[in-house]
Amino acid sequence: MDQAPSPNMIKRHTGILERYRSFLPVTENTPLISLHEGSTPLIHAPNLSERLGVELHFKYEGLNPTGSFKDRGMVMAVAKAVEEGSRTIMCASTGNTSAAAAAYAARAGLRCIVLIPNGNIALGKLAQAIAYGAEVIAIDGNFDEALQIVREITASQPITLVNSVNPYRIEGQKTAAFEICDALGKAPDILAIPVGNAGNITAYWKGFKEYRDFGLIDSLPNMYGFQAAGAAPLVLGETVSNPETIATAIRIGNPASKEGALQAVSESNGLVDSVTDNEILEAYQMLAKHEGIFCEPASAASLAGIIKLRRQGKLSDGAQIACVLTGNGLKDPNIALKLVGEEPRSIPATREAVMSFIAEKAGMA
Amino acid sequence: MDQAPSPNMIKRHTGILERYRSFLPVTENTPLISLHEGSTPLIHAPNLSERLGVELHFKYEGLNPTGSFKDRGMVMAVAKAVEEGSRTIMCASTGNTSAAAAAYAARAGLRCIVLIPNGNIALGKLAQAIAYGAEVIAIDGNFDEALQIVREITASQPITLVNSVNPYRIEGQKTAAFEICDALGKAPDILAIPVGNAGNITAYWKGFKEYRDFGLIDSLPNMYGFQAAGAAPLVLGETVSNPETIATAIRIGNPASKEGALQAVSESNGLVDSVTDNEILEAYQMLAKHEGIFCEPASAASLAGIIKLRRQGKLSDGAQIACVLTGNGLKDPNIALKLVGEEPRSIPATREAVMSFIAEKAGMA
Repeated sequence: MDQAPSPNMIKRHTGILERYRSFLPVTENTPLISLHEGSTPLIHAPNLSERLGVELHFKYEGLNPTGSFKDRGMVMAVAKAVEEGSRTIMCASTGNTSAAAAAYAARAGLRCIVLIPNGNIALGKLAQAIAYGAEVIAIDGNFDEALQIVREITASQPITLVNSVNPYRIEGQKTAAFEICDALGKAPDILAIPVGNAGNITAYWKGFKEYRDFGLIDSLPNMYGFQAAGAAPLVLGETVSNPETIATAIRIGNPASKEGALQAVSESNGLVDSVTDNEILEAYQMLAKHEGIFCEPASAASLAGIIKLRRQGKLSDGAQIACVLTGNGLKDPNIALKLVGEEPRSIPATREAVMSFIAEKAGMA
Repeated sequence: MDQAPSPNMIKRHTGILERYRSFLPVTENTPLISLHEGSTPLIHAPNLSERLGVELHFKYEGLNPTGSFKDRGMVMAVAKAVEEGSRTIMCASTGNTSAAAAAYAARAGLRCIVLIPNGNIALGKLAQAIAYGAEVIAIDGNFDEALQIVREITASQPITLVNSVNPYRIEGQKTAAFEICDALGKAPDILAIPVGNAGNITAYWKGFKEYRDFGLIDSLPNMYGFQAAGAAPLVLGETVSNPETIATAIRIGNPASKEGALQAVSESNGLVDSVTDNEILEAYQMLAKHEGIFCEPASAASLAGIIKLRRQGKLSDGAQIACVLTGNGLKDPNIALKLVGEEPRSIPATREAVMSFIAEKAGMA
C-alpha cells in the first residue's frame, strides 16, 4: 500500500423501517424494530445472461435475517402490532412466514403462534421457528386450511394476524422494489417473481408504482409471475384443492392476494405462467452451478419461467430482467442432497486415495 | 404521505474487493469477482445487553452469500487464483470453507475439490458444496488429516490451495474488522470470536491494526478468542488428537493459524478461553429466543465466552463488545430440532383443536 487508502465508510442500513420510513406507515409511536432486514444484494449474473441472451439480475432475498423476503413485511407488521398494544401474533405458514414471525416476535418480546401444514415444511424453516421460540402447531391439513383457521381465531381473539392479509405486510414487502430501482437507477424491463400466496407480486407492483408516482423512476416493469404447475390457481383461473409441488414455499391453491396479483399482471402488461417441478429444479441447479447462488426451490421458479419464455421466443434479446429469489437454499438442504442421490462415499485418509479419486473425476469430465 | 419522501439511494456494495480495494492485494489484473459478500449487519442486542450489563453487538456473518464469514477470504483467494491462471482450487473443510470455495469457483468457472472429514459435517454445508458443483470427497479421518493431505497434493500439483494457509484468505477476512469500525465509528472495547483453525482471529487483529495504522481508529480492542472445551488446543497449549464438540465448525485440534491467534491475544492484552458444549448451546438458544438471531452452534461460542467471563466477574460493566457470529443457523438445522426433542405433533385441522392447544400453552406459560 503506497498511499493512504480511503475507506468507504458507508454502512449497511439498520433496516427498512428507518431506510424507507417516509414511504411506510411509520408514525412517531412506531418502534423502529430491526434485524437489519432488506438491503439485500441485486446480483448480476454474467454466465446465465450470456447463455440466455438477456441481462439477468437476481434480487437475492435469501440474505435477509431469517433467510427470506418475509422479513420485510414482518418487521412492519410486528412494529405496528407493538404500536397497537398487541402481545401475541399468529400466522399460517409454509415455513418462511413462521420463521420471520418468530424472529421478530422474539426481538419484540411478543408471543408467537404458527400453524403449519403437516409434513410439508422444509427442515430449515421448522428449525428456525422452533429456535426463535415460537409455538409451532402442525395441523392435519394444507396451507389454505391453516390460514382459514388463523383468520377465524384472530377475528375473535386479542391476537394479531400477521399473514399477508395483514396490510402492513404488503407495505414492508414493497421496499424490495425500491431497492431494485435504487440499485439499477431505474426499473428493470421485466420483474420475474415466484407466485404462491401472491402477496409479494402485489407488494412489488405497489412499490414500483409508488416510486414512479414520486418521480423516482420514469417507467414501470412488466410483471411476470410464475407458479408451480401443480399449484397454479392463477394460471388455471380456479382454486386448486390439493396443490402439489416440490417448491413448498409456493404450494398454495387459493392465494390470499389473488386480486392484487391479477391487477399487477393486467396493469403492467405482464403475465402469469406456470413451470413444472423439473423446470424449477433445473433452474435451481443452474443458479448454483453457474452463478454460485443457492436459493430455495420455490425461488428458482422466477428463473425457470424466464428460461421457458426465452425458449418460446417470447423475450426480447438483451431485455433487462430482475428475478426475485425469495429464499435461501439453506432453508431446504434435503432437496440439494436428494438431487445427487446419495451422500459422498468415504475413502481412506491417504494422499494416494485422494489423488486417484481426483484423477478419476478428471477423466470423467 | 403528506410530503414527498426522500429516498435513501445508498445501495449495498458489490463486494469486499471493490469496497476495500485499497486495503487489499488487488491489482489491475485482479478480477473483481463478487457475490456481494461482506457488508453484513452489526446488530445491537438490547435484550441480552440489559440481561448481561454490557453493550453487546453481533457481527452476523451468516448473512454472507454462502452463509458464513468464509466468503470474505474466499473471494480474495479465488480472484488471485484466477489472476495467476489457476484452473482448479482445493481445500479441506469442516463445511463452511467448502461452501464458499464451491460458490466462488462456480462463479469464476474453476474446478473445485473439497475434502471433508467423514460424518462430521453439518447438513446444510454438505448440501451447499454439492449444489454449487464441487467435487466432494469424504475421508475416513478428521479435519487435521484432511488438511495435511490437501497441503501435500497442492504442493506438487497445479492446484491452488484455498485453506486459510493461503495468505489471501486472511487478507479478505480482515475486512470484517473494518466494517465493525465503520459501523461503530471506532473499535469496540472487546472483540469476542470463536476460534477453530484460528485464521479468523488472526485476520480480525490484522484488520484492526491496519485501520489504526492508517489513523482510521484510535484504539484497538482486546481480542477474546473462545474454543470449544473438547477442541481447545490453544487453551491447553497442545494439539488435541481427537477433537470433539457439537460445534463442528470449530472442531479442530491443530489450528493452522495458531501463531497468529496467540500473537493477537498477546498483543491486544486479550485472552483465549474454552466453553463447554452446554454453554455453547445455551448461548445459541438465548440469541434466537431473545434477539431473533439464528446462528450456527460454533458461532455462539463468542457469546458463551462472554457470558462465562461476566459470571466470573471478569468484564467491566457496560463494556462495548462485538461478538462475531461466524455462520448462519440454517447451516445446521438438525441441532435446533434436536434441542426440542421432537417435531411438533399434528392436531386436527379445526378451530376448536387449535384454540384448545393455544389455551393449554398459555396455561403452561
